[in-house]
Formats: sequence, structure tokens, C-alpha cells
Amino acid sequence: MSDKEYNVAVVGAGLVGRRLVSILEQRRFPMAELRILATSSRRQEIAGRERQVIEACDEAFEGVDIALFAGTEGETGASRLYGWKAVENGVFVVDNGGDFRMDDRVPLVIPEVNSRALFSHKGFIANPNCSTIQMVMALAPLHLAAGLKRVVVSTYQAVSGTGQAGARALQQQREAAVHGGDLDLGPYPHPIVNNAIPQVSGLRERFPGYYNEEIKMIEETRKIFDYPHLPVTATCVRVPVENSHSEAINAEFERPLTVQEARELLEAFDGVVVVDDPARSLYPLAADADGEDAVYVGRIRIDPSRPNTLDLWCACDNLRKGAALNTVQIAEKAVEMGLL
Amino acid sequence: MSDKEYNVAVVGAGLVGRRLVSILEQRRFPMAELRILATSSRRQEIAGRERQVIEACDEAFEGVDIALFAGTEGETGASRLYGWKAVENGVFVVDNGGDFRMDDRVPLVIPEVNSRALFSHKGFIANPNCSTIQMVMALAPLHLAAGLKRVVVSTYQAVSGTGQAGARALQQQREAAVHGGDLDLGPYPHPIVNNAIPQVSGLRERFPGYYNEEIKMIEETRKIFDYPHLPVTATCVRVPVENSHSEAINAEFERPLTVQEARELLEAFDGVVVVDDPARSLYPLAADADGEDAVYVGRIRIDPSRPNTLDLWCACDNLRKGAALNTVQIAEKAVEMGLL
Repeated sequence: MSDKEYNVAVVGAGLVGRRLVSILEQRRFPMAELRILATSSRRQEIAGRERQVIEACDEAFEGVDIALFAGTEGETGASRLYGWKAVENGVFVVDNGGDFRMDDRVPLVIPEVNSRALFSHKGFIANPNCSTIQMVMALAPLHLAAGLKRVVVSTYQAVSGTGQAGARALQQQREAAVHGGDLDLGPYPHPIVNNAIPQVSGLRERFPGYYNEEIKMIEETRKIFDYPHLPVTATCVRVPVENSHSEAINAEFERPLTVQEARELLEAFDGVVVVDDPARSLYPLAADADGEDAVYVGRIRIDPSRPNTLDLWCACDNLRKGAALNTVQIAEKAVEMGLL
Repeated sequence: MSDKEYNVAVVGAGLVGRRLVSILEQRRFPMAELRILATSSRRQEIAGRERQVIEACDEAFEGVDIALFAGTEGETGASRLYGWKAVENGVFVVDNGGDFRMDDRVPLVIPEVNSRALFSHKGFIANPNCSTIQMVMALAPLHLAAGLKRVVVSTYQAVSGTGQAGARALQQQREAAVHGGDLDLGPYPHPIVNNAIPQVSGLRERFPGYYNEEIKMIEETRKIFDYPHLPVTATCVRVPVENSHSEAINAEFERPLTVQEARELLEAFDGVVVVDDPARSLYPLAADADGEDAVYVGRIRIDPSRPNTLDLWCACDNLRKGAALNTVQIAEKAVEMGLL
């Protein structure tokens, strides 16, 4: 990186926004100023100390070089309100929201996988969905070596993916399960305690019967790999876990891969840690991934039901590599590539 | 059924054994005597009232017509100690344990699917694994109509599958998550609260890197469908849910099935209830299946990634249809078929 320092805005002060701030500071991103924008002005404890939060509006982006949008679960995020206007005013935007990921103007980037997509940027970069990021990280080195042919994925997603409301709902329902009392559903259509809810986000017309998170995993994976018709199917499921998503991935390749080859390819890949000793009950776990940066991959085994196919299991902190960390890494990579 | 009444022994007084007793009584199984055997003699509250439990030994089976073994998670169940000796003495044995399911002498039966396998019985019938039963119930009518070609399944399994020790571990860890305190791992190698553990049972040599529950789902499905090389792969995962397993199933068929055809086939199949209105967030849920008899199937959709392939989601009370109910149904069917 050069010695230049940047005026950085973080848009959002929820679970992802707060992690954006702490990760920028942990990684010593070269900041001249850090401005935190949200829906209202207030003092708020963020990443270890009380800070000033400024109400977001177009003017609040004045003088900003880089704006990192925390994004929302829904499709009405701040990036739609302020993102492109900021780009017009010379701000380099990285958006963790879902509004523009499939927009042709917008590169969709995991730095370890497709940073070259940044070269065609128009000032607005999208951060993929959390479930997509960890799956693509686990598949990328194998795809490079053996050529992906088809992916079947089932997710085990934490409530932190629904933001603070999801975390509160699990906590309240867990207390009710221990002490009795009514369940407060919070953001979910059903209780999350003692349950596995096969619905993450709402329906979308694109594929009949699929919920939007599942379609994101299909479409975003194709865009990141620049493989427009890659066959992917997904079942996305919310489970009573506070933080970190897990995924069971069945991946068919054009060419055979041994388990040993797959392990070596994954071990050599930046951002992936292999945890795979089933005889000692060592494999990726949501509880271990919580607060960590890596995508953990294990349970790597030959699927006996189809040639050239592997089963994998991965776990990753959905708020870090699945969201805030990857967003900061995109900004770091853009600086390193001299794009700002 | 005839008017004959039978002397019935239930072997085991844990989660499954207690449900065997309550289901026998609920369904008015024609019993002259109900004898409850376990590892020690004692008075114990079972299915609503205090009952005498007798210490199991070969002599305790004297005069018994039908013995239902609750089974254990491990492979050292009572059926190995007493089962075949009882058969020699004329007892009709139905075993929910895992010891003899793949034994060539032993039919492996889900009454709605393959009751004809009972005709070749030698006095000893095995009840399939809980995860296998609900998957096979969800696939059987579709297999009959369109011919299964391959199955990829990921499970979301409740702690009750590990018996009372599993239930206690989740309860203790949930209390610790609410109030603080150390986690008691109980029967698991890792915390189950805030986690998804991709290990159900131990490793087995049969398929490298697969845990035994996964191999059971592969081998038992083949045996029940009498389809020795049916391609199946499974990832079995324990989640922090008290009772009822859920499963994400990807099923490829020889011939195409529309979603509507699949729904009608499943709706017409005994023991299956279709819950499938994604626009209204209606789908099978572990919390809803708890205490119920049916296998609930929903999220039925065309997998866009491969021809003739459907994605499904199912939930089922693993202690009832997954264990005790199916065991009682086998005994009922055997009586109805005049095999006793």
C-alpha cells in the first residue's frame, strides 16, 4: 500500500457496521478520518469506545474517499438511498447489502477469489452474501484445479445474519425455554429455539419455490466464478446458533480430486483453514469460527454416489469474512491495486 | 387384526422405551400383559403412571410373544444380549437398535414402504435408523412413480437422538448460555449450544471419512428399497434442537416429476403430511413435528441444477415415527399379516 490515508465512512451501526469499525482499526486501514453514519445522530459505544454517529444524508458523504455500507437483510438499504449519489461525487463505495450485487455495473468480489473483477469498477463494489462467501471460498481452489460441474448446498445459518433483532429473538426464546414464558418471534415467522427454519428471507420469482437467500447463493456464485450457468442448488436454513454459519456442500467436478489433493489445495489457499481429522472429532464448528477471520473447511470425503464428487463441511463467522471483513478486504485490495 | 392378545415385552425404559409403552397403549395394541425390562429392577414413572421395571435377563422373556427393543445409540444393545436367544424361544423380536439392521437374516422394515419384507422373517425384525425412516418415507412414493437415481441428504438432528444424556446436555448448556457457567459436554465431543456438530456417532471403515449415521442412511436406504447400489450420500449434523429431526433432501429421478405431481403422490402416501406453502411461510418444522406421528414434507421444488431432480425438506419426531411408533407399527403389521 502507499502512504496515502483516506477519509472513510462506515454506513450502519448494527452488528455488521460495528464490526466494520473494529476491523478497520484492527487491520490499521490507512484512515485520516473515520465517520460513522446511521439513521440517526447519537453517541454510541462501538468497537470498544463511545463514538459520534452522524445521521446519514447525501451531504454526510462530503470529503469521504471510501464508504463501506454495512447493508441490510432487506432490499431497501442505505446504498440505494445514498450509494450511487456518493459514487457520482467521487466516493469509492463497497456495499455489503443485497441491492446491487447482480447489477452489471457492479463487480461482486471476494478478494482471494476474483480481485481482478475490481479492474472494471465504476466506483461501486458489492460484497457477496455471507452464505455465498464461505461456500465460494471453500470451493474456489478446488474449482481452479478440477473444474466445478455442480454444487448442492445446505446451510445452517446463525441468527446474527438477521442482525440484532435475530440475536435478541434467540436470547429471549432461550430464556423462555429455560424459565418458561411466551416466545417473542422477533424477525422470524416461527420460533427459532428448538427449531430449524427452512426459510432465510422471502420468496422470489426467479426460481419457483426458492427463497431469496437460496437464489443469492445460486446467482452470486455464478457471477463471482464468472460461470453464468454453473449448476447450483441450495437449501438455506436458520438454526438456533448465535453466530457463524455452517454449510454442507456436495461438489461435483469435471476431473477427479483425491481427499489429499483437496486438502492441500485448500490449505494453500489464502483465508481458508483446513480442520479435518474425523477420527479425533476435529472439523469446522460454528462455535470455533465465531470471532475468527478464516473460512474453516473439513469433513472432506469422496462422495461414493457420483464420480468426481466431494462432500465438504465449512464454518465461518458470517459477520466477519461473511460480511465486514470481506468488505474491508475489498477496500484494502482496491488501494493495493491503485484503484483509488 | 384377530382377537388374539399378546404378551408384550418392552426392553428399555429411556426416551424410546417410554414412548414404546405409551404408543402401545394409545394405539390399543392387543396386549394380555405388558412387561418392561431394563438394566435394573425398579419402580419408574412411565407413560403417565408408576410401573414395575424388571431386570432384563434371558428368563425375563419367558412367556413373551412379542419383544420390542428400544435400542441404543451404540452397538452393544440388549438385542445382542437377549434378542436371538428370545427368538429361539419363540419370541417375535422387533429391534430399534443398530446391531442387526444390515444382517441378512433380518428384514429392515418401514410398514408403509416395504411390509412385504416381513414375509421372509426369521423371528427378528429391525427398525431402521431414525434419520433413514423419515427420508425413506419422504422418498418412497416418488421413487415408486419416477425411479430414484441419486440422493444427497443433509440432516439437522435433535439431541433426543442421543437419549436422555443428549437432552440433559442441551438443557444444561442452554442454562449456562443464559446465566453463565461452565458447559457440560455430556455425550458430545463439543458444545451443542450455539453449534452445529457435523458428527453423529463414530467413524466406520465402510466409507472413508464418513461417520456411522451417514453410512446407516446410505446402507439402510438401499436395503429398504431393495436397491443395493442406489447412489446416496449423507452429511449428518447435530443441532441444538430438543426433539424432531429435519432433513434437506436432493433427489434425482429417472423420469421427470412436477412439483404438483410430487405433492399429490406424497399426500396420498400413508404416514406423510405435506406442508408446503412457501408464500405463507408454511413448511415442515421440527417444533411442529414434536409429539406427532407423521413425516412432514415440504419445500418441494424443481432443482434447476440437474434434470429430473427435486429439492425437499422434511421433519419428523425422531422418537416416534423415527423409532417407537415405527417399531409398534411393525408389530401391528406382523399381527395383521398373520405372522405370529
